[in-house]
Amino acid sequence: MHHNKGMVNALRKPYVIFVGEEQSPVYTKTGSGIAHWDPSSCVGQIRLSSDAADLGLPDMSLDEAIAAGAKTLVIGIAVVGGAIPTPMRSVIHEALSRGVDVASGTHDRLADDPEFAGAAAASGARITDVRVPPPGLPVGKGVKRTGKRVLTVGTDCALGKKYTALALAKEMTARGMDATFRATGQTGILISGSGVPIDAVVADFVSGAAETLSPDAPETHWDVIEGQGAILHPGYAAVSMGLLMGSQPDAIVVCTDATRTTIAGWPDFPLPSIQEVIDLTLRIGSVVNPAIRVVGISANTSALSESEREQYLARLSEEHGVPAVDSVATGVGPIVDVLQQ
Amino acid sequence: MHHNKGMVNALRKPYVIFVGEEQSPVYTKTGSGIAHWDPSSCVGQIRLSSDAADLGLPDMSLDEAIAAGAKTLVIGIAVVGGAIPTPMRSVIHEALSRGVDVASGTHDRLADDPEFAGAAAASGARITDVRVPPPGLPVGKGVKRTGKRVLTVGTDCALGKKYTALALAKEMTARGMDATFRATGQTGILISGSGVPIDAVVADFVSGAAETLSPDAPETHWDVIEGQGAILHPGYAAVSMGLLMGSQPDAIVVCTDATRTTIAGWPDFPLPSIQEVIDLTLRIGSVVNPAIRVVGISANTSALSESEREQYLARLSEEHGVPAVDSVATGVGPIVDVLQQ
Repeated sequence: MHHNKGMVNALRKPYVIFVGEEQSPVYTKTGSGIAHWDPSSCVGQIRLSSDAADLGLPDMSLDEAIAAGAKTLVIGIAVVGGAIPTPMRSVIHEALSRGVDVASGTHDRLADDPEFAGAAAASGARITDVRVPPPGLPVGKGVKRTGKRVLTVGTDCALGKKYTALALAKEMTARGMDATFRATGQTGILISGSGVPIDAVVADFVSGAAETLSPDAPETHWDVIEGQGAILHPGYAAVSMGLLMGSQPDAIVVCTDATRTTIAGWPDFPLPSIQEVIDLTLRIGSVVNPAIRVVGISANTSALSESEREQYLARLSEEHGVPAVDSVATGVGPIVDVLQQ
Repeated sequence: MHHNKGMVNALRKPYVIFVGEEQSPVYTKTGSGIAHWDPSSCVGQIRLSSDAADLGLPDMSLDEAIAAGAKTLVIGIAVVGGAIPTPMRSVIHEALSRGVDVASGTHDRLADDPEFAGAAAASGARITDVRVPPPGLPVGKGVKRTGKRVLTVGTDCALGKKYTALALAKEMTARGMDATFRATGQTGILISGSGVPIDAVVADFVSGAAETLSPDAPETHWDVIEGQGAILHPGYAAVSMGLLMGSQPDAIVVCTDATRTTIAGWPDFPLPSIQEVIDLTLRIGSVVNPAIRVVGISANTSALSESEREQYLARLSEEHGVPAVDSVATGVGPIVDVLQQ
């Protein structure tokens, strides 16, 4: 495929998702995200206990997964504050020994584990820690690239930028548009099989990393780029700034949360208005793409009733002159309508 | 001193500056910068050839430097595209063996050189590669810190942000104000003896690094923070954004160049106007410090005649309502007048 050229951290599919003994749906969100967004790339799940969370994939052993063609064992759980649980280690080790790649978004780097590294080296299997940026990222050049790009941005973190981008890419593909989801965080990278963990890139190279992530493409092709951070965020604005500069988006979708009033985790900081985020993003983005425009608003309205949601979205749409959706409750169709025009 | 608490990468002074055999004034700018801005911290220079550039410091051998109390041998040259020249290696090795620290801003990390690392380990001397950020930098919290801060920003890179900050700190100190230069790049760090190489910090931690760089201080104290990059720069905007958020400046000084029309090295990008840079910087900076204001403009006018300079600076001052200076040709006094008010 033409747009594989700039792919980074490319993982081999199909996957088998490793749940281990983890029971919590919160800590298995990585696995359930992959199963939800790309079930056709998953041959099954490996659970080490009947109490473990069920991702809705066929249960299988490592032997069965290999027989079914699994190329990569994906660690589908978040490992909180520590090491991979012991019962999981032997399965990971065996997978690597038998030439199955292992991909992980955990904080501890699997590739730094001597036992795993040794098994991988012996078989030729590859360990990919998706929180680790690829080497050799360039400084951003700002050279205009071919093809089209839409970036999800936000009034804050953790309000649906990844979900909205995935939903846009899915809907666009379903309509026959040529679209590629471009992942910038570990879960997105595991879902899509490639990407750059943009917040782990050294500051000088963030816009260059974003340029690498969405290379030249045919003029009718859309890259749908997962946003990170927020342009007015006291902690993460640098990430958002570099991603915006390097993405040179033609279109932005602003993600927000209907009931959030302050930055999550930074309670002294009021949530900026949608208009402020639009103004600032278009001003900065116009440096690298004068045609940048806002094409929609994607709001998390899960705390509203259905009638409240309707009124809220109608008001946002009227205020900003673009469709306003809840990507879970209403779907992103009206935004894709704008992109199709 | 109260503001040593947050000091990072602190180097031991006095220095002896190592010029080696380098003849070019361009490649010895690091050394000449230290000799210019902090001569009282330099016991002398070590030159390995009578043709080598003269920084205006007393010539001495390593023995003499140690006898004169030198605590750190500073590599005063830029090593272009490669290794430390062989004649310099034996002096560095001997310095480390005799307990003298070595500090370097070269691309190759001296601490990764087994010979140097071994000598340092044996004597207890420390190798500081000032391009390497300190470990353990936090995410930016945005909590308002005590004391006052002025940040130099720019319409572009390489137009005097470091020089202007150093000149401001020097003038403020000369007037009896309590001021500390805060370095964000390798030359500034070597000059001041501490700092964070902000462009080498992972994106998630840039604003946190800037917070660490200028900790709480007495209310009358000024941190004068060396700017990096430019907020509308296609390659380096992320660095500038994180530095701005974390610095939470009370005051900014905008640096520009009187005759530059495009971004240096990015000829397709017009230089943004001073007003654009002011507007954007104040808008973003107000998130972390609502009192942020512009206090001056510092322009490189070296390509203008004296009468042209006068007219140009008068026009800038009138347009923006703040003093406009050339920090080399006119000095920064009028800007310090504003800070003193």
